[in-house]
Amino acid sequence: MAIVGAAHVDVGDAVNDDVSHDEALSGVPVRPRAVVRPGTTDEVAAVVRAAAAERVPLTPRGSGTGLSGGATPVPGGIVLSFERMRAILEIDVANHVAVVEPGVTLAELDEALLPHGLVYPVFPGEQSASLGGNVATNAGGMRAVKYGVTRHHVLGVEAVLGTGEVITAGGRFVKATSGYDLTQLILGSEGTLAVVTQAILRLHPRPAHTATLLAPFATLDEVAAAVPPLVASGVGPLLVEYIDLLSMGGITAAAGIDLGIPEDIRAKTLAYLVVVLEDHHEDRLEEDTASVAGLLTELGSLELYVLPGAAGAQLIEARERAFWAAKAAGADDIVDAVVPRASIPSYLGTVGGLAAAAGALVTGCGHVGDGNVHLSIFQPDPDVRGRLIHDILAAAAALGGAVSGEHGIGTRKLAELAGLEDPVKLDLMRRIKTAFDPRGILNPGTIFAPGDTAPAPAPDGRQGAHR
Amino acid sequence: MAIVGAAHVDVGDAVNDDVSHDEALSGVPVRPRAVVRPGTTDEVAAVVRAAAAERVPLTPRGSGTGLSGGATPVPGGIVLSFERMRAILEIDVANHVAVVEPGVTLAELDEALLPHGLVYPVFPGEQSASLGGNVATNAGGMRAVKYGVTRHHVLGVEAVLGTGEVITAGGRFVKATSGYDLTQLILGSEGTLAVVTQAILRLHPRPAHTATLLAPFATLDEVAAAVPPLVASGVGPLLVEYIDLLSMGGITAAAGIDLGIPEDIRAKTLAYLVVVLEDHHEDRLEEDTASVAGLLTELGSLELYVLPGAAGAQLIEARERAFWAAKAAGADDIVDAVVPRASIPSYLGTVGGLAAAAGALVTGCGHVGDGNVHLSIFQPDPDVRGRLIHDILAAAAALGGAVSGEHGIGTRKLAELAGLEDPVKLDLMRRIKTAFDPRGILNPGTIFAPGDTAPAPAPDGRQGAHR
Repeated sequence: MAIVGAAHVDVGDAVNDDVSHDEALSGVPVRPRAVVRPGTTDEVAAVVRAAAAERVPLTPRGSGTGLSGGATPVPGGIVLSFERMRAILEIDVANHVAVVEPGVTLAELDEALLPHGLVYPVFPGEQSASLGGNVATNAGGMRAVKYGVTRHHVLGVEAVLGTGEVITAGGRFVKATSGYDLTQLILGSEGTLAVVTQAILRLHPRPAHTATLLAPFATLDEVAAAVPPLVASGVGPLLVEYIDLLSMGGITAAAGIDLGIPEDIRAKTLAYLVVVLEDHHEDRLEEDTASVAGLLTELGSLELYVLPGAAGAQLIEARERAFWAAKAAGADDIVDAVVPRASIPSYLGTVGGLAAAAGALVTGCGHVGDGNVHLSIFQPDPDVRGRLIHDILAAAAALGGAVSGEHGIGTRKLAELAGLEDPVKLDLMRRIKTAFDPRGILNPGTIFAPGDTAPAPAPDGRQGAHR
Repeated sequence: MAIVGAAHVDVGDAVNDDVSHDEALSGVPVRPRAVVRPGTTDEVAAVVRAAAAERVPLTPRGSGTGLSGGATPVPGGIVLSFERMRAILEIDVANHVAVVEPGVTLAELDEALLPHGLVYPVFPGEQSASLGGNVATNAGGMRAVKYGVTRHHVLGVEAVLGTGEVITAGGRFVKATSGYDLTQLILGSEGTLAVVTQAILRLHPRPAHTATLLAPFATLDEVAAAVPPLVASGVGPLLVEYIDLLSMGGITAAAGIDLGIPEDIRAKTLAYLVVVLEDHHEDRLEEDTASVAGLLTELGSLELYVLPGAAGAQLIEARERAFWAAKAAGADDIVDAVVPRASIPSYLGTVGGLAAAAGALVTGCGHVGDGNVHLSIFQPDPDVRGRLIHDILAAAAALGGAVSGEHGIGTRKLAELAGLEDPVKLDLMRRIKTAFDPRGILNPGTIFAPGDTAPAPAPDGRQGAHR
């Protein structure tokens, strides 16, 4: 295209196969008509305007590490790649703010912040992920129990609407009540409302000291029951994860880690709780570590391991690679449900029953501190698997949870959202979509099925369904 | 009306004058046609449906403590009062969540949480305010530097759209990516998108120990310059406030407090920094207090006072009453701008120049830790004052700030929002408003001028204005 220059457009056979999919296990690749790599916001806006005029679907793409197919192109559509927009525009130390372009990866940002003693505390587990993708999916990760998720750290955005208009929302401040919060609305909208071209990120002082505790438990119920007293104790853990027996085996084997847990403990263990603490003061960290160790022992932990720095980091890194371990082990699909954290034991009991009935193996680990459960589903039959996943997500919804905690709906969970969500809310979301993107060119097929985003007439006077 | 029963409707002369205004200094009271007090969500929905059918404006009302006129009725309209919906429906200790009806006050909730060792950490300064009003304005307050604002503590809502449909959004979890985040969109929308009938609030362990530090400085620049190193030190202050000389005089005089600061220090002082720390451990608090005291002394504090528990609480309480002190002193209006926190010195310099040029006295205090500045304007001439306030807010916008940090736009800052905000965004907000409230019956005249919410046609292909 003339907008970005011929060197920055691939068409037809020149399109790299990589852009036809993301990392979703069950996705069907789709080759786009072209890939366009804009270098500036103005170029993005011009591309969107041109696409709107011709009603050509646009699929924004960062690093392509998504797990729900949200970056899967549409047949005949164009991939809007941010690989050229990867500048860290500013690190504003006085305001504890970074301003980034969407193509910047988490690893690049973390490296740039290190010398300033600052941290962007969202670690969704894949450091090659782009900030643009993180903003689109409201990425979470293990540290959400302390710091919250992407939503809590994006103070403002520059974004291009589906009309090609450019807006800025929010700013270098944590609060404002000056009209509707467009930043928060665009956050997590998976590229369907606007294309984010800059993000203002909130930074935190980087604590110097961390400690990792590993507690094997005989039952998952005990693991989950340990969480409320742990959180209530006020130590403010950085990370509270559960890892079931099979996942721990897969994770440590894939990473080549030996945790040195004696056979007699391992024989009695059904699940592990991993707690990481951090502090600016080493003595406080030691005191808190001892206090958490005492608490977990009281709460039934079979043993208590305080992992030295390197071993702790290794375990967390291995846990971050859990998706890849599951993929290598042949998992057929993954689930990322969220439930109230106190409901995790009952939820996992239900999941176990559903898995047994479907003849499937379901293993899991997750952010037990915030109720986000990651399951790996081993069941090769797509129909049986599809029904099982539906039932697993329906069980989460029935407990007052949600279909996706952090991966997003993408193109892979359309049926579950459409089937489990209140139709009144879906209609409202379609009208919001139309307010941003009247021609429906932004990431069509994500969140809503293709062709399902035409605005429904606003109903009047009808009682909404309670979920 | 038949919907709520005759005992819960006041009409005509029976309407109490109190509902004709909120606490905005410059508002013009408007008597509504009627006040309706629903007792349940179903009754709220039925009232909204009836109002939508007859296109009667509805003004939701909590405690009426707002400062921007957002609860001012519309001539011929109906006030939807939540004084009967004031149940704390649940305190869910395991999930650290409370579920409340909109009429519950902050004081009532705090009292109920105390025995559980939990706290809802948003303290906007007026404990008689209702949670429904807090949700509508995204209320902030002094503790935002540590805990964030209302937006960060509302996990979900039940709400009635302008169609009368009831939705629930979010839940008892801190993260989800399952369609657009309607909770966050409704938060801070000042009752113009939906009427919130229940809110799910996030709670925190209540730290047992607090310490208050008072540091007089010779210049406001030094006060502001002290904030970034204070935040970067990692002590995580609960509260970082600046109070200028005149405001401190007004606040302490109104509260009858003598801080015991010697005359020679007072003579040199132009502004005060107040820092409150909290901790679960008394020894850590003492250590942090000493470290902050050392830091502030290094940074130029003329003296350093660590106030004993009761005196500290008294000062904070007096500071929370700053609005009332200003009102008693005859302030003609107030401003609640937000700027990046590092820009506070330059911003206050600009404000000083504007005030002098307009022959006005402008005093201030504010949440220097998060960039939110509260100014009291003493200038009786409404035209001169109006231009001055416009210029003060325009200066905030020019620094990348916003017109309101926490009070909201209401009915009092319509001109500033319309004049200073990007028209592209205002059009987008109007379309969002229409998606929720197609007949424009929810709090008309707030955020947008009356009659200004008809949906603008979605423009295509026009370059948006950059702010």
